[in-house]
Amino acid sequence: MGVRRAIYPGSFDPITFGHLDIIHRASHLFDSLIVAVAQSEAKQPLFSANERVSLIKGAIPHAPGVEVRQFDGLLVDLAREENAFVVIRGLRAISDFEFEFQMALMNRRLEPRLETIFLTPKEDYTFLSSRIVKEVARLGGDVTPFVPSVVADRLKAKYLPHRE
Amino acid sequence: MGVRRAIYPGSFDPITFGHLDIIHRASHLFDSLIVAVAQSEAKQPLFSANERVSLIKGAIPHAPGVEVRQFDGLLVDLAREENAFVVIRGLRAISDFEFEFQMALMNRRLEPRLETIFLTPKEDYTFLSSRIVKEVARLGGDVTPFVPSVVADRLKAKYLPHRE
Amino acid sequence: MGVRRAIYPGSFDPITFGHLDIIHRASHLFDSLIVAVAQSEAKQPLFSANERVSLIKGAIPHAPGVEVRQFDGLLVDLAREENAFVVIRGLRAISDFEFEFQMALMNRRLEPRLETIFLTPKEDYTFLSSRIVKEVARLGGDVTPFVPSVVADRLKAKYLPHRE
Amino acid sequence: MGVRRAIYPGSFDPITFGHLDIIHRASHLFDSLIVAVAQSEAKQPLFSANERVSLIKGAIPHAPGVEVRQFDGLLVDLAREENAFVVIRGLRAISDFEFEFQMALMNRRLEPRLETIFLTPKEDYTFLSSRIVKEVARLGGDVTPFVPSVVADRLKAKYLPHRE
Amino acid sequence: MGVRRAIYPGSFDPITFGHLDIIHRASHLFDSLIVAVAQSEAKQPLFSANERVSLIKGAIPHAPGVEVRQFDGLLVDLAREENAFVVIRGLRAISDFEFEFQMALMNRRLEPRLETIFLTPKEDYTFLSSRIVKEVARLGGDVTPFVPSVVADRLKAKYLPHRE
Amino acid sequence: MGVRRAIYPGSFDPITFGHLDIIHRASHLFDSLIVAVAQSEAKQPLFSANERVSLIKGAIPHAPGVEVRQFDGLLVDLAREENAFVVIRGLRAISDFEFEFQMALMNRRLEPRLETIFLTPKEDYTFLSSRIVKEVARLGGDVTPFVPSVVADRLKAKYLPHRE
Repeated sequence: MGVRRAIYPGSFDPITFGHLDIIHRASHLFDSLIVAVAQSEAKQPLFSANERVSLIKGAIPHAPGVEVRQFDGLLVDLAREENAFVVIRGLRAISDFEFEFQMALMNRRLEPRLETIFLTPKEDYTFLSSRIVKEVARLGGDVTPFVPSVVADRLKAKYLPHRE
Repeated sequence: MGVRRAIYPGSFDPITFGHLDIIHRASHLFDSLIVAVAQSEAKQPLFSANERVSLIKGAIPHAPGVEVRQFDGLLVDLAREENAFVVIRGLRAISDFEFEFQMALMNRRLEPRLETIFLTPKEDYTFLSSRIVKEVARLGGDVTPFVPSVVADRLKAKYLPHRE
Repeated sequence: MGVRRAIYPGSFDPITFGHLDIIHRASHLFDSLIVAVAQSEAKQPLFSANERVSLIKGAIPHAPGVEVRQFDGLLVDLAREENAFVVIRGLRAISDFEFEFQMALMNRRLEPRLETIFLTPKEDYTFLSSRIVKEVARLGGDVTPFVPSVVADRLKAKYLPHRE
Repeated sequence: MGVRRAIYPGSFDPITFGHLDIIHRASHLFDSLIVAVAQSEAKQPLFSANERVSLIKGAIPHAPGVEVRQFDGLLVDLAREENAFVVIRGLRAISDFEFEFQMALMNRRLEPRLETIFLTPKEDYTFLSSRIVKEVARLGGDVTPFVPSVVADRLKAKYLPHRE
Repeated sequence: MGVRRAIYPGSFDPITFGHLDIIHRASHLFDSLIVAVAQSEAKQPLFSANERVSLIKGAIPHAPGVEVRQFDGLLVDLAREENAFVVIRGLRAISDFEFEFQMALMNRRLEPRLETIFLTPKEDYTFLSSRIVKEVARLGGDVTPFVPSVVADRLKAKYLPHRE
Repeated sequence: MGVRRAIYPGSFDPITFGHLDIIHRASHLFDSLIVAVAQSEAKQPLFSANERVSLIKGAIPHAPGVEVRQFDGLLVDLAREENAFVVIRGLRAISDFEFEFQMALMNRRLEPRLETIFLTPKEDYTFLSSRIVKEVARLGGDVTPFVPSVVADRLKAKYLPHRE
């Protein structure tokens, strides 16, 4: 078989240890992995796409075969452009499952070559989501058990600029 | 038994082939079917209620016994006004199920005569929702496999006005 | 439209107030309703199919338009034989939903005219199932709040024959 | 054992009979219960935190051992401040369950002494949520079966000020 | 308040670290805890009720306020006999949730004083069940990470008697 | 990277078009795929493990890189023996998801190198399971839309030997 390339798309607003666990697992399954940061302007992200890319890069300094980039458009267009027809998603919970399932079927309809595969994160990260991390950080909680320290620092700077 | 009238309420923002499948199925079960377009201003719909009604009418030009109308208020008030005490809903997924179930019980509490019945759409439409169709259209994807061509055209005009 | 006939299939081992609620609701929606008792030998039912039919008949003595009968075979064959292409099912819970959904799609594949519609029982019966009623009766509990008294008596006779 | 104190946190925007049922149940299980009204500004509540506190107090005039207060911050900080390490939550539906489960695990990670316990509301309140009550009130429906009359009055005043 | 007594009922065939985690948590919430081993003959348990009781006792040698006993009958009868009206259950997953919810509502119908409360086990035990442990042991796998060593030994003796 | 080998374990009692869809998808993702037929005697399979293997082989006569074999033991032992540390599973529904999730976590605990990945079958096969196919065949229904013709013939021979 030729080189196998996979895409791990998401908002990553911001990246958590749960995402990093999936990146680590996926990078062992494929020759190259593109972590694709959706601009997601409609979701009003806390961090800009540029910031989110650089937080991910800071978190995985030495990951051979892993590339981090932004994208703005359909996942299927990215897949064709990158010639990478495997999509990686992490599954934590039922509610993930349903939406992910719908997206996987829709993407396959738009591009039959696109195969979505779901990985299971470490059970320690079952409860972890970017949303819940932002909520804890916003209320002044310590998020260093859940995100890389550089992300924890940036969250503190965003939410509690005067407490430094 | 007398004439049986049913209501199929929704936002229909915009109508998809999944909705049309349910309309088709429901119109065979009842003497008359009212497709009731909720104004849903709180959801900030993409199309106005007028537009949504006319897109549905355009999609079902020759459907005897099917009427399309707007409504703004409680479903139970519409039911009493139209003397139609059967409510039709499509069920695609678990997350639908829970909310629909809650609504069905609430509506029955408000009006005991109101009976909600759930229909199963064609499995090809399992993944289909107005939300996902708008997302694909917004990003420039082809939505003609999912909605009538008149709807696809209107989506393109909304999201990509300069590409015409 | 012509006469509309529906089928409510199940094991009914034994009939509960939850089933009776669905029968009552369905009989108002259709001209005639066939309560179809599956023999279900593979499930090793507590009551014979004959007993289950007669318990249902005893519970609905004056239900015009409702017929109770056994069947042993595919539901689609019964539907063709009875010329009744609407199948009624009650939905209580998620786990119901998934299996019912699969059955509805399978039955439609076997006979495209077959339409399955789901009704919502009264919320008081959310927790009720024949299985849980049998478990309570087996352990000597009072099941008269959950099943007709004739069924409660028969359960007592089955499980506790010497306590009479 | 010493005095056992529990916290029942929520937005309570506004309080419903479902919440009151949980308060009643929890107050029998613990020596003292703190109903903790989260400010939840990010959710753009209909009622201010002050109003929500006073609506709850109005609804439970004679509840010994129950205290109602606002809080703005992490639940774990409130727990330490109040020396109350049991968190009460009501479970109605699957979608509740998943989010609550994630919150319970996150809170335990932030404070290992924090134990979340889930209670089951009366099945009559299965379908009840503050959101659905607000929607019915906004559309002019009668919400007196779902909330205390003082809450129903305040909802009418908010949504339909000119109909008084 | 008086002495608060709770019951943790189950089959415990055999006890796992997940059950022990719940016992530990519950014993901190109540003055006394009865671990109630249902005979469950209908489920054809691997261990006799006597063995299951003694395996639990062996696993919690020094647990003040925790009592282990068998029962055969309705949980509500045990509750009345023991004057213990709080039932403890652990929640791991959605499928647990639905059945537990039904049981909680049924038990409350049979005895209104009976309150079921759900606790969340440590996330490390999310995947753990007696069934899965037995399956692993039957196939010769090492179950010492999942159950006390005395249970692991007894499982090996049951399934692999000749390998000792 | 070296040769990537994956295992698709299951009972396959009997193989359906849903399984074949997963085999087809997985064989494009990995260099070699082992379809591993669990003996599953405890489940009292309809077909012997030998028969199940030969039905699969008959259904995929020309699948390069796909090997079909029996196994009786722990999946992790098979993985070590075959030096294949990726496990493939298909996800159709929520109930699948939960059990599969538990198994994936358990297997990872037993062997940290074992990675379970979930694939999404074609939506046409959402409702398909070996169990439902056997039920239809047992009742005399036509299962040729759901399984290869050789499987349909064998099912007919098992269930309806005298109708040939």
